[in-house]
Amino acid sequence: MVSGIIREAMVEIINFVSKAIDMISDKEKDNMIETLIDAYKRGARVLVMGAGRSGLVGKAFAMRLLHMGFQVYVLGETIIPRIRKDDIVIAISGSGRTKLIVTAAEAAKAVGAKIIAITSYPDSPLAELSDIIVRIPGRTKIAEEEDYFTRQILGIHESLAPLGTLFEDTVMVFLDGVVAELMNKLGKTEEDLRNEHANIEL
Amino acid sequence: MVSGIIREAMVEIINFVSKAIDMISDKEKDNMIETLIDAYKRGARVLVMGAGRSGLVGKAFAMRLLHMGFQVYVLGETIIPRIRKDDIVIAISGSGRTKLIVTAAEAAKAVGAKIIAITSYPDSPLAELSDIIVRIPGRTKIAEEEDYFTRQILGIHESLAPLGTLFEDTVMVFLDGVVAELMNKLGKTEEDLRNEHANIEL
Amino acid sequence: MVSGIIREAMVEIINFVSKAIDMISDKEKDNMIETLIDAYKRGARVLVMGAGRSGLVGKAFAMRLLHMGFQVYVLGETIIPRIRKDDIVIAISGSGRTKLIVTAAEAAKAVGAKIIAITSYPDSPLAELSDIIVRIPGRTKIAEEEDYFTRQILGIHESLAPLGTLFEDTVMVFLDGVVAELMNKLGKTEEDLRNEHANIEL
Amino acid sequence: MVSGIIREAMVEIINFVSKAIDMISDKEKDNMIETLIDAYKRGARVLVMGAGRSGLVGKAFAMRLLHMGFQVYVLGETIIPRIRKDDIVIAISGSGRTKLIVTAAEAAKAVGAKIIAITSYPDSPLAELSDIIVRIPGRTKIAEEEDYFTRQILGIHESLAPLGTLFEDTVMVFLDGVVAELMNKLGKTEEDLRNEHANIEL
Repeated sequence: MVSGIIREAMVEIINFVSKAIDMISDKEKDNMIETLIDAYKRGARVLVMGAGRSGLVGKAFAMRLLHMGFQVYVLGETIIPRIRKDDIVIAISGSGRTKLIVTAAEAAKAVGAKIIAITSYPDSPLAELSDIIVRIPGRTKIAEEEDYFTRQILGIHESLAPLGTLFEDTVMVFLDGVVAELMNKLGKTEEDLRNEHANIEL
Repeated sequence: MVSGIIREAMVEIINFVSKAIDMISDKEKDNMIETLIDAYKRGARVLVMGAGRSGLVGKAFAMRLLHMGFQVYVLGETIIPRIRKDDIVIAISGSGRTKLIVTAAEAAKAVGAKIIAITSYPDSPLAELSDIIVRIPGRTKIAEEEDYFTRQILGIHESLAPLGTLFEDTVMVFLDGVVAELMNKLGKTEEDLRNEHANIEL
Repeated sequence: MVSGIIREAMVEIINFVSKAIDMISDKEKDNMIETLIDAYKRGARVLVMGAGRSGLVGKAFAMRLLHMGFQVYVLGETIIPRIRKDDIVIAISGSGRTKLIVTAAEAAKAVGAKIIAITSYPDSPLAELSDIIVRIPGRTKIAEEEDYFTRQILGIHESLAPLGTLFEDTVMVFLDGVVAELMNKLGKTEEDLRNEHANIEL
Repeated sequence: MVSGIIREAMVEIINFVSKAIDMISDKEKDNMIETLIDAYKRGARVLVMGAGRSGLVGKAFAMRLLHMGFQVYVLGETIIPRIRKDDIVIAISGSGRTKLIVTAAEAAKAVGAKIIAITSYPDSPLAELSDIIVRIPGRTKIAEEEDYFTRQILGIHESLAPLGTLFEDTVMVFLDGVVAELMNKLGKTEEDLRNEHANIEL
């Protein structure tokens, strides 16, 4: 049993994510799930993007989408195909102002892709250009510098206190929940997936 | 307020992480913290490694170590310096059997580095070669295939149910707690870090 | 006009690549080209893999395959789909002994993928398990340690003299030549590609 | 002996790089080498940056700088420390207009870092903000869209003909030459490096 500061920090994170379950909109979540199911059925491309720790959480989600059979890609990797009309972009940015992400989302929107923003700020530039917004609490302070690589170069980062990571931690648990619901809605069981592998591939 | 399957999944994850707080050993955590503080003071290198989602959680932790002033590196990136005697390796593997990670940890041990294993299995190959073990519950089933890239190529992955991600989610919250404790132990406040930046860099 | 050591090194590299043009087998090259064209027509997946600098040269080639419309992936990225029977693997390893690459190629072969080895050693473990070998001169000394991450951790690397990079430099120019030939064989002109983008996407 | 289109393409690349040896300025090269040697002696950080294929060539160079003992980092990796006054940035961009690179170089310049631009365009935004310019021929057409990720999303890329890769191929050979000269100037022999490893590390 861990005690002291680490315990307090872990409890604070858990309590925050717990409360977030009640704060996240069921309707926003439904919009996201339906859009993803539709993309799955159409074989549309899903491009996941986020900078820094948001990008890592996005990659963890992208891996799961791949395992379920989605055509999924991650911004920043070597291989990113063209995004086309009706493809899906999932853009994760607590502040909704990370320049790299806003610029890439704008480009995708310009070709007719559907943008899903996961952000704490529904009135941010990212949210404003998005078709679907899923508000996830956690980002309380907006970094003044909006360019991610500039922040790296200048050594500017979000708060190191647990408070500084609540957005990413909450998004990670939320997206794991999205995976559970997608599996159910797509009628996929673990067993199915395993059998499919066993029969066809191995 | 989200409801239905996603709610159940999120609650299940949170409850699991909550229980994990009581299951993680304070002594193991102390060993890890002390080793890291010692590394910080000596300017030793810290190499973080993990495959797949464990690797992503490791990267999120590595970013925080960097922000606190550690000499930190991540296996798989372009730039990895030589690991030397008394450097630190943090190896994250739920099963403790991921070949890539076990092989890399062995190489680091051979040059005299100190290995910290974060794993669900204290009797795994990774744990057995490590100097410090931090047991984190969550990995309930050990994948039969131990080579990560082979698993990718064969399409083998951990369970997609929330159960399949409990290890990574728990490690993520645990390591955010470690960051909080390190900041306290190293006497760093947010304000300090910010001032340091403001005075010297900007 | 650069002079001195840098001039000598650049001339040495160019002369080596020049001679390599006469040493690379037209038949081996044809096998590779035909296999890729067939993969393109079938929509088969192409997985490119290499460690260290060979991996970087592989990524540069993968980008070009993507631009031509191939279904291409790079080992080590977040998103790698399952490799299936009759998919293609392009494995780049000067020594043909890099463990990571040999292990991944074995896994792909086990599911029935076709392996193309690009290597200086036609009797290496990689070449022996491959369906098609393209011998590219340049790697003159075989590193004793065959695990790439172990080499990173131990600080072992190929010769820093120009001699140490002749394999990668030669492979890069060779693969750029493969791109030119593929474009011709696939009947693609720059203009075609540009028009296709302009009409459909922008 | 390869023949036909691939031979023509390889010969075209080699001839271009050959001519480039006479076109690259010895003085610009000397400025770069001296700056790097000075950085090495001061233990300054060297940050290498480039988008797409230029980024891959930059990574290959960064690996070599690491092997020689430089404190080197690559933009886009997880771990990028703060860049400080008198640190060095090597920015590779054929057009000198890639937004990501120009923005990052501006941020580094703002904190007093010294910028080395490797570009075909000495009057480009990147060149204009740089302290040292090394003109490398090869980029003949400037892409209209200057944001790299936007180009990926829109599927815009440099010419696929060999002409489209002359800049990257030339930079790769040039930087391998820089490595040879640095080794000589720093008085490092292969043997030295190997012995150093053998005695201290293994």
